[in-house]
Amino acid sequence: MLNGHPTCGQRHGHTARILVEVSGDVKGGQGYQENMVMDFQELKERCRTVLKILDHKDLNETFSFPTSENIASWIFAELKKQVAVSNVTFFEGNGKWCTVEE
Amino acid sequence: MLNGHPTCGQRHGHTARILVEVSGDVKGGQGYQENMVMDFQELKERCRTVLKILDHKDLNETFSFPTSENIASWIFAELKKQVAVSNVTFFEGNGKWCTVEE
Amino acid sequence: MLNGHPTCGQRHGHTARILVEVSGDVKGGQGYQENMVMDFQELKERCRTVLKILDHKDLNETFSFPTSENIASWIFAELKKQVAVSNVTFFEGNGKWCTVEE
Repeated sequence: MLNGHPTCGQRHGHTARILVEVSGDVKGGQGYQENMVMDFQELKERCRTVLKILDHKDLNETFSFPTSENIASWIFAELKKQVAVSNVTFFEGNGKWCTVEE
Repeated sequence: MLNGHPTCGQRHGHTARILVEVSGDVKGGQGYQENMVMDFQELKERCRTVLKILDHKDLNETFSFPTSENIASWIFAELKKQVAVSNVTFFEGNGKWCTVEE
Repeated sequence: MLNGHPTCGQRHGHTARILVEVSGDVKGGQGYQENMVMDFQELKERCRTVLKILDHKDLNETFSFPTSENIASWIFAELKKQVAVSNVTFFEGNGKWCTVEE
């Protein structure tokens, strides 16, 4: 809910979606880890841990204004503590998204 | 119609689609506007106003060569007059697109 | 197959997908070529030629570790010999991708 917004000023929900990218060089070498920036599985798990804090919750308990911008920035900051995230895109729905980049 | 092009040299149509991004910092503060780069609704309206000039029209009346590049550049320039657009992607169809960036 | 990986350590397949972008300025002028960065058709043909080397093949014959990172890098390098490619994104599947940029 965005206080004062003509349409988003009342409690409502979204089916949101995020895109997350981490960036880095690939060293190459004899192990699979050295041929990846990061294992997809690990990144997905870290994303799930962060999203669990928001999913099916009242976002106004976490954000004064849960705009896509603020949500994307928050996810970016949370992931940044853990991985070399370069950008997070938060889709509020189809055709409405916000990308936060480093 | 692209004069001289082997397949696009005759009148034809496309189901096009655009992606538009505006960029900026979020100030934060006590109003919802200060927690957004721009309201999605306002951006959509501005896009629709610009697209109305092209939609269901003979593009050869506006462009000598209505390539995706020229169309995307034109949309970018039109939107730039109004908003802090950072990039416009014009999809001619699935799998064929052109992005114009600042 | 990624030797030593807990789930990808055995032979398996993917329905992969790539996104390729070439970049450049549009000169403008009296021919359609001067109003394009590159003809979509030509780019698609060049992509197909490169992908034919990988499609329905045992990727471990080409790569010690066929990670998305290594495959995307290889496609990027192959295309770079021919066109002004700026980035290649290789989708291993939905929601798992790697982008190689210049």
